[in-house]
Amino acid sequence: MKIGRLCVIGVGLIGGSFALKLKQLGLVDEVVGYGHRTENLKKAVALGVIDRYETDVTLAVKGADLVMLAVPLGAIGLLFAEIEPHLDADTIVTDAGSAKDSVIKDIIERVGACPANFVPGHPIAGREKSGVEAVDADLYQNHRVILTPTETTNESAVELVQTLWSAVGANVSLMAASFHDEVFAATSHLPHMLAFALVDMLNEHAELGNVFQYTAGGFRDFTRIASSDATMWRDIALHNSAALVKWLNAYQAELQTLTQLIESQNGPALFKLFDQAKTARDQHILNKNTDA
Amino acid sequence: MKIGRLCVIGVGLIGGSFALKLKQLGLVDEVVGYGHRTENLKKAVALGVIDRYETDVTLAVKGADLVMLAVPLGAIGLLFAEIEPHLDADTIVTDAGSAKDSVIKDIIERVGACPANFVPGHPIAGREKSGVEAVDADLYQNHRVILTPTETTNESAVELVQTLWSAVGANVSLMAASFHDEVFAATSHLPHMLAFALVDMLNEHAELGNVFQYTAGGFRDFTRIASSDATMWRDIALHNSAALVKWLNAYQAELQTLTQLIESQNGPALFKLFDQAKTARDQHILNKNTDA
Repeated sequence: MKIGRLCVIGVGLIGGSFALKLKQLGLVDEVVGYGHRTENLKKAVALGVIDRYETDVTLAVKGADLVMLAVPLGAIGLLFAEIEPHLDADTIVTDAGSAKDSVIKDIIERVGACPANFVPGHPIAGREKSGVEAVDADLYQNHRVILTPTETTNESAVELVQTLWSAVGANVSLMAASFHDEVFAATSHLPHMLAFALVDMLNEHAELGNVFQYTAGGFRDFTRIASSDATMWRDIALHNSAALVKWLNAYQAELQTLTQLIESQNGPALFKLFDQAKTARDQHILNKNTDA
Repeated sequence: MKIGRLCVIGVGLIGGSFALKLKQLGLVDEVVGYGHRTENLKKAVALGVIDRYETDVTLAVKGADLVMLAVPLGAIGLLFAEIEPHLDADTIVTDAGSAKDSVIKDIIERVGACPANFVPGHPIAGREKSGVEAVDADLYQNHRVILTPTETTNESAVELVQTLWSAVGANVSLMAASFHDEVFAATSHLPHMLAFALVDMLNEHAELGNVFQYTAGGFRDFTRIASSDATMWRDIALHNSAALVKWLNAYQAELQTLTQLIESQNGPALFKLFDQAKTARDQHILNKNTDA
C-alpha cells in the first residue's frame, strides 16, 4: 500500500520520524509539512524529513491522502476543526495523542461527529529529546502503536493507517479508546505523575540541603521520566484526567497500606509485597525485548 | 595505611568487592571470610576474594585489624554482640548497612554502648546482581560512602575506615546517623517503596489483563528498583521506619495536591509543578558523573 501525499501537521520527533521512514521506504510520493515556526519547517526540508511546507494549514492538507496530526493533545481537536472543511472526501486523518477518549470527544464537540475517516492513534515512542533535529527513521522499530477506532470509523481507513505504521516497524494493536486510556493512565501517565511529584517534593524540602547530591543510579532511572516535557504532560494530565485520578487514588490507597505495614513493623507482609512486585517485574519486564 | 588482617563477615557483592580491591592494591596482608554457606566461602577463595575462611565467627575475627560486617541490616547488631567478646582491644569494626540509627541503637541495646572502635558506614553501591559471583574490584569507583561516627567513636578508627574506602575509589562523606537516615529515606528508600507499590498494584488489578505488555522504556526504568532483593528492602523498611514513614506521608500529601490540581483542571499549576521538577532534575541529576 503506497500513498501519494502525506501531510504532517507538527513536524517534530513523532510526525517527522513517521514521514522520514515512509519516504525512505518509497511508500509516499510527497510529504507536505505544516507548523508554527517556518525556521523549523525549513530545517525539516533540509533534513529531507518533508519535501515542502505550507504556512497555511488549510493549504497544507489540500489533496492529501493522509494527514498526521502530530501536535500536543490540547491542539488536536482545534486543528481538526480547522482543516475539516478543506479535506477531500477520501482524505484519511490520524493523530498521535497520548490520550484517546478526550480527542474523540473534542472532535465530536467541534464538528458534530467523529468522522468516519478519522483514525485515532497513539505511537508508544518518545525520547527525552524532541524536535525535528531528533527525527529518527528507526524510532518506531519494534515499538507499539495503538489505534482506537470508534464504531463509525471506516475499516479501510483503519487498514491504511495500520499498514503504514507496520511498514515503519511498529507493532500495531487495536483497542477501545476508553480501554487505552485506562491502561496508559496506569502504566505511563501515573508513573510520570509519581516521578514529577517525587522530584518536586525533594526540591521543595530545603531543610535537608540539596539532597540530589546523595542520589545514585536507582534514583536517576526512577526519575528519568520527570525530565519529560512539561507542556506535553500538562496536556496529558488534563485530557486523561478521569482515568488518571482513578489510578492516583488507587495508588494512594496502596501507599497507605504499605505505610501501615511499615508502622506496624509487619516484616512478613512487607516481604510478601516486595517479593511479589519483584517477581512480577522480573517476569514481565526484564524479559521484554521491544522497548521505548 | 596498610592493614594486616581484614575479616569480612558476609562475603557477597559488598564485602567481597571491598576485600578484593584492597588485596589488589596490596593494602591488606590477609583476608579472612565468614558466612553461613561453606560452598560460597570456597567459591570466594577460588575467586581470590578472600584468602581463607572460618565457619565459626568468633574464630574468624581473631587477630583482625578490621572487621567488615557486610550482612543484612537485621543481622548486624546480633553479629556484633556475638563477636564483641572475641575482638582484640584495637580491632576496628565497620558495617555496610543502609540505615544507621537503628544499627547503632541495636548495638547499644545488645552490648550496653556503641564501642569507640565501631565505625558505622554505608557504601552507596549495589547492583541487581548480588553474591560473590558478582564481586567487582571496581564497584566503589566514584561511588559515595557515608560514615556516621557517634560522639564516642575513635577518630583514628574513622580515619582508618575512611582511608580504606578512599583507597578502593569511593568518595567518603561524614554525617550524623540521623541526617543520613533522613536523606536516604527521601532519596533511596522512598523511591524503592514507590516502585514496589506501583508494580504490586498493577499486578493485583487483573481487570485490565496483563498491563505490563503495554509498558515501554519509561516504565522499565521507573520500576528497575522494584527488581531489588525483597529481604534487603524488608529490612530497610523495618529499620529506617520512622524516617521512611515521615517521607511516605509527605509524599502522599504531595500526591493529594497533584490529584486536586488534575481534578480542578488547573493547567497553569500543573505546568509549573512539572516544569519545576524537570528543571530540578535536569540541573541536579543529568549532569552527575558519579553514579551507582
